[in-house]
Amino acid sequence: MQWLYWFAPAGALVALGFAVLLVLGILKKKEGTDVMVSIAKAVREGATAYIKRQYSVVAIFFVVVFAVLLTLAILKLVPLPVPFAFITGGFFSGLSGFLGLKVATASSARTANAAQKSLNSGLRVAFSSGMVMGLVVVGLALLDLSIWYVILNSVYKAKPVVERLPIIASTMLNFGMGASFYALFARVGGGIFTKAADVGADLVGKVEAGIPEDDPRNPAVIADNVGDNVGDVAGMGADLYESYADSIVATMALAAAAAGGLTAALAAEMSLKMVLLPLVIAAVGLIASIIGFFLVRAGERAEQRVLLWALRRGIWGAALLTAIGAFFVVWFVLGPSYIGVFFSVLTGLVAGVILGFLTEYFTSDNYRPTKGIARSAETGPATVIIEGLSVGMISAAPSVIVVAAAVLGAFYFAGGSNNFNMGLYGVGIAAVGMLSTLGITLATDAYGPVADNAGGNAEMAKLKPIVRKRTDALDSLGNTTAATGKGFAIGSAALTALALLVAYRNEAQEAIRKAGSTIAALDISLTNPRLLIGIFLGAMLVFLISALIMRAIGTSAQAIVKDVRHQFTHTKGLMQGKVKPDYAGTVMLCTKSAQKQMIVPALSAMVTPVVAGIILGVEGVLGLLAGAITTGFAMAIFMANSGGAWDNAKKFIESGQFGGKGSDAHKAGVVGDTVGDPFKDAAGPALNILIKLMSMVSIVFLGLVVALKLF
Amino acid sequence: MQWLYWFAPAGALVALGFAVLLVLGILKKKEGTDVMVSIAKAVREGATAYIKRQYSVVAIFFVVVFAVLLTLAILKLVPLPVPFAFITGGFFSGLSGFLGLKVATASSARTANAAQKSLNSGLRVAFSSGMVMGLVVVGLALLDLSIWYVILNSVYKAKPVVERLPIIASTMLNFGMGASFYALFARVGGGIFTKAADVGADLVGKVEAGIPEDDPRNPAVIADNVGDNVGDVAGMGADLYESYADSIVATMALAAAAAGGLTAALAAEMSLKMVLLPLVIAAVGLIASIIGFFLVRAGERAEQRVLLWALRRGIWGAALLTAIGAFFVVWFVLGPSYIGVFFSVLTGLVAGVILGFLTEYFTSDNYRPTKGIARSAETGPATVIIEGLSVGMISAAPSVIVVAAAVLGAFYFAGGSNNFNMGLYGVGIAAVGMLSTLGITLATDAYGPVADNAGGNAEMAKLKPIVRKRTDALDSLGNTTAATGKGFAIGSAALTALALLVAYRNEAQEAIRKAGSTIAALDISLTNPRLLIGIFLGAMLVFLISALIMRAIGTSAQAIVKDVRHQFTHTKGLMQGKVKPDYAGTVMLCTKSAQKQMIVPALSAMVTPVVAGIILGVEGVLGLLAGAITTGFAMAIFMANSGGAWDNAKKFIESGQFGGKGSDAHKAGVVGDTVGDPFKDAAGPALNILIKLMSMVSIVFLGLVVALKLF
Repeated sequence: MQWLYWFAPAGALVALGFAVLLVLGILKKKEGTDVMVSIAKAVREGATAYIKRQYSVVAIFFVVVFAVLLTLAILKLVPLPVPFAFITGGFFSGLSGFLGLKVATASSARTANAAQKSLNSGLRVAFSSGMVMGLVVVGLALLDLSIWYVILNSVYKAKPVVERLPIIASTMLNFGMGASFYALFARVGGGIFTKAADVGADLVGKVEAGIPEDDPRNPAVIADNVGDNVGDVAGMGADLYESYADSIVATMALAAAAAGGLTAALAAEMSLKMVLLPLVIAAVGLIASIIGFFLVRAGERAEQRVLLWALRRGIWGAALLTAIGAFFVVWFVLGPSYIGVFFSVLTGLVAGVILGFLTEYFTSDNYRPTKGIARSAETGPATVIIEGLSVGMISAAPSVIVVAAAVLGAFYFAGGSNNFNMGLYGVGIAAVGMLSTLGITLATDAYGPVADNAGGNAEMAKLKPIVRKRTDALDSLGNTTAATGKGFAIGSAALTALALLVAYRNEAQEAIRKAGSTIAALDISLTNPRLLIGIFLGAMLVFLISALIMRAIGTSAQAIVKDVRHQFTHTKGLMQGKVKPDYAGTVMLCTKSAQKQMIVPALSAMVTPVVAGIILGVEGVLGLLAGAITTGFAMAIFMANSGGAWDNAKKFIESGQFGGKGSDAHKAGVVGDTVGDPFKDAAGPALNILIKLMSMVSIVFLGLVVALKLF
Repeated sequence: MQWLYWFAPAGALVALGFAVLLVLGILKKKEGTDVMVSIAKAVREGATAYIKRQYSVVAIFFVVVFAVLLTLAILKLVPLPVPFAFITGGFFSGLSGFLGLKVATASSARTANAAQKSLNSGLRVAFSSGMVMGLVVVGLALLDLSIWYVILNSVYKAKPVVERLPIIASTMLNFGMGASFYALFARVGGGIFTKAADVGADLVGKVEAGIPEDDPRNPAVIADNVGDNVGDVAGMGADLYESYADSIVATMALAAAAAGGLTAALAAEMSLKMVLLPLVIAAVGLIASIIGFFLVRAGERAEQRVLLWALRRGIWGAALLTAIGAFFVVWFVLGPSYIGVFFSVLTGLVAGVILGFLTEYFTSDNYRPTKGIARSAETGPATVIIEGLSVGMISAAPSVIVVAAAVLGAFYFAGGSNNFNMGLYGVGIAAVGMLSTLGITLATDAYGPVADNAGGNAEMAKLKPIVRKRTDALDSLGNTTAATGKGFAIGSAALTALALLVAYRNEAQEAIRKAGSTIAALDISLTNPRLLIGIFLGAMLVFLISALIMRAIGTSAQAIVKDVRHQFTHTKGLMQGKVKPDYAGTVMLCTKSAQKQMIVPALSAMVTPVVAGIILGVEGVLGLLAGAITTGFAMAIFMANSGGAWDNAKKFIESGQFGGKGSDAHKAGVVGDTVGDPFKDAAGPALNILIKLMSMVSIVFLGLVVALKLF
């Protein structure tokens, strides 16, 4: 059954090859006028400058953690390949973001140029760029996983399969830690950058000076466009690379544990099949995503609504194809008696679709919640805030219920009532199922910033108003489909985190078994006070990190505000449009500030599980993870949906409702949007990474914790 | 050792007797001019009208739940005294709030009148009124507990002590459910009323019409004053009655379980001592509170800062005396070998003091967090909101760490490492210790609304500005000391909830043991998916209920806004001050709206544990409770502190900072304050009750859940 393995590298190469084709297609398009080219160049240079600086900061952290891991490996507290797996995870996660960023910045002017022809032409360019991102993320993840699988198989080839697979799986979890580690920096740093630039540009430009959005006189306008790329593209790429890779490695680890419950005769073959199954399902989803890409077709004169359905056809088509493929894969790989595992995959896919719809319901101005927020703007900013917070908090309820039902369903479908570990494997495989179509769902999310940048480009290059209108339509379309994409990402984070929680428990039991009678057996019952305290700390950490990120944005935004004000008042001829503002200076200011501010929140997430482990022991860490996962999930949905709903409520008012642009209601709506920005684009997504990174850190430093624990 | 029991009723009678003396002292004071009397009368009538209506709505629910419980008792799913215990808990909780309300509304004009003489005179009246509230709550709780203890002892007198005590303790938990049930209605209904009236009065009066706060032309101004009484006095009284009673009964239940681990010879006497100990400690704290009251003395010409220290002397003095008393009580009752239990009490007391200080640090304008919020007002409402949310979320971190340390400390001091149940008993006793000085800590919290009303009275009666200045000083003093009181309340809620969680586990094990082999043994390990899903649902419920309450306030406030606008535009001569507005109409509108809006959030809290139990079983309920307690605690602190900090940041600006009253920064500060009101006075405190009510409901309906459970 080892041949099943080849699905993974083959799929990876198909994805990367197709991505190259798409890039060549994009580059063939024209960038437009000289002005358009020069604006795109400024954004590209700003983004590259940011990402270079980010790498240099992150590199220091990677070197430190690598040194720590290497020391632990030498002390035999972690296996020797761990530090190297960690490094590659971080490298590929960063590479995904970087490549996505390159393509996105190359596509914005081309999208604006194509949008001069028609809405559909604009969509083709922007969506291709998003698809490249999706394919690069999926392709690199599968490639890296495949390579490590081969390396580890040869490192441990002396051991029999039943012993070898658990070691391989647990080492590969460290690969996940590298990915999560980089993703947190990219998401947090990028999120702080983009929102600080956005808030800074809006507060001084739109509110104080009264000039329009994306006005070239605003020094923060390029930083704002750069921000879209570094936060929403590079950050998101690293983020979803991490989600994708983590869900697969966590499920591999559960597979290795689940097969342990079988009879010895079956164990070797079954465990191999179960470990490889997530890779095969991922490959199936990848092919389905590429087919889905071709389903996104519309006539040249198609309107927004038609395009929306084209995009949906792509996403839902890919999900359906994956479901069909998964059925046959489970049937032939595990055999008909394990067909329940297919229903676990299906549970994951269906839950992802429902979560996507819920996100759309709570954040689109087609539905009551967002309309209600817009209406509350009539009574001022305070009621907009209260209503927006309420909508977000309420929206957590149905999403949590869907995830809860998915966990139960996936657990029992996979046979959890007879074999507990099989049930948990089912939960992991549901997460893999949910993320298997990431190639296309990420595309629907990642093309939004390209459209946004294209709009900025069109505005600054003074193209005809119809172009800006079209890019705005693309952007708003992107907001709707991004909702679907976010549903998959957020739901899979919860499922993966649960799988990681169990993986941690398994690793801990193994570590304690090895330590022998010197350490008491695990008491992971809920009434163990150390575990309960862990849950308290986990819940608390979610609040703390969210606040630190929001505050970091506030601090950075204040710096931008001062800079923009200074340029407005001190640069002669700027307001008259005679002199260009110092775009690069503002970009560099944003960069430095974001890099500085991201350190504390990122470190808190990493240090806490280790410190908690030393003080509260393994049980405390388990509680910490459970608390962080559950509260983090509810908080992430709350923040994402409050932010999205505020954004769209403001746009709804701008479309002429409740007084339209310039009215008091609009001003109140802008306040909501400004509060929502750090919610939806920084703190919320960071929580997704946080809960997985904490699990990863806990697993990697388990040996240390067991060796040092105080009680 | 049965004679120990007499401490409780004796303490109760001392408290109630002293309360009567204080009331007579207050009533001897003059109410002031005719205008002052008539304003006080309007507020009193409004408050009484509200409370009557509240009783009639709540009565329906009590009848329904009573009928359900009686049916369960007849079906032998709960013991027979349960429905009656439930009713008395609700009755006494309601009575505490009612008596507190009566005294508070009788004291406002008298405080304003006394404040004409000096700040200290005003404080004496207001603080006496708060002290009556504190004593009534403590006295009635101890009285009711004493009576039930006698009744249950005679009902079950045929059983030996070791069997009798667990039954008595578990029946008395139902008494707690009645108290929690009423408290949730009072807090939620009162909170909705007061905040809707407040928001309505401010939005139309201050912001739109530009008339001052407490201007008699504003139709919502009486409703606003009524609201302070029904929400902050009657609601808080019921709330803390519930906290106090719950902490004692939960600890009694743990005592009954803990003694089970001892040798048979010791068990009977030890368990009796341990069950009675919380009652004795409560009585000690009560006497210490009365002594503390006499420590609150200051010279007639004392300034604000001197008075603050006088209040602190009272609180800290009472805490110190309780600690000394508890040492001797534990030494003589349990014996020197159990002196560790004293350190558990001390842990609770110290944690309460630290939590109080933390609340003050994060919400007082003497410290950086609130000053930072005020500064962020310079860049508009959006930054005020973000900064306020950040401060609140960050403030959850140190508080959670203090509670975590207190739980660990109380657990190990009481001997948890050798006897697990003793450790849990230590956690319960820490909660009792923390709340033992409630008599005086509640006084420092409850006198604030009296001072606030006195200010309104002074304003409307057109007393000299110095009087309003003095009542404002009292009010602001109240905000600071209330922070200390809130620290005790919120911390004890977490500790009590943990005790209840364990009590639930014990009851569930007992129920399953009785059901015999038809039901599988409990698996309360964290990796049980049903338990994990429970934690998810618990965390989610906290977000949902918070949102429902905030939204209820929004809905009610909209109604008030419309009514006030209508009166402003349609009542001729109103704005010129020639015609009085229809105060009573606005009060009745607030009342009806609040009563209607409180039903959904209150019901969600009660129905969820039962439904979750039927679907997910006992393990799911345990998870639900753990999730709700941990997330609820963090959320409650976040909301209370964000709200408090916004309030004080606004006041800080009003004191002349960052442009002072009328500046743009002030307007931004008002937005923060308006958002913060539902946070700190409705949703936040409701969460404290919610987590305990859910535990209570779970325990009471345990028999039903075990009988009906699906899986």
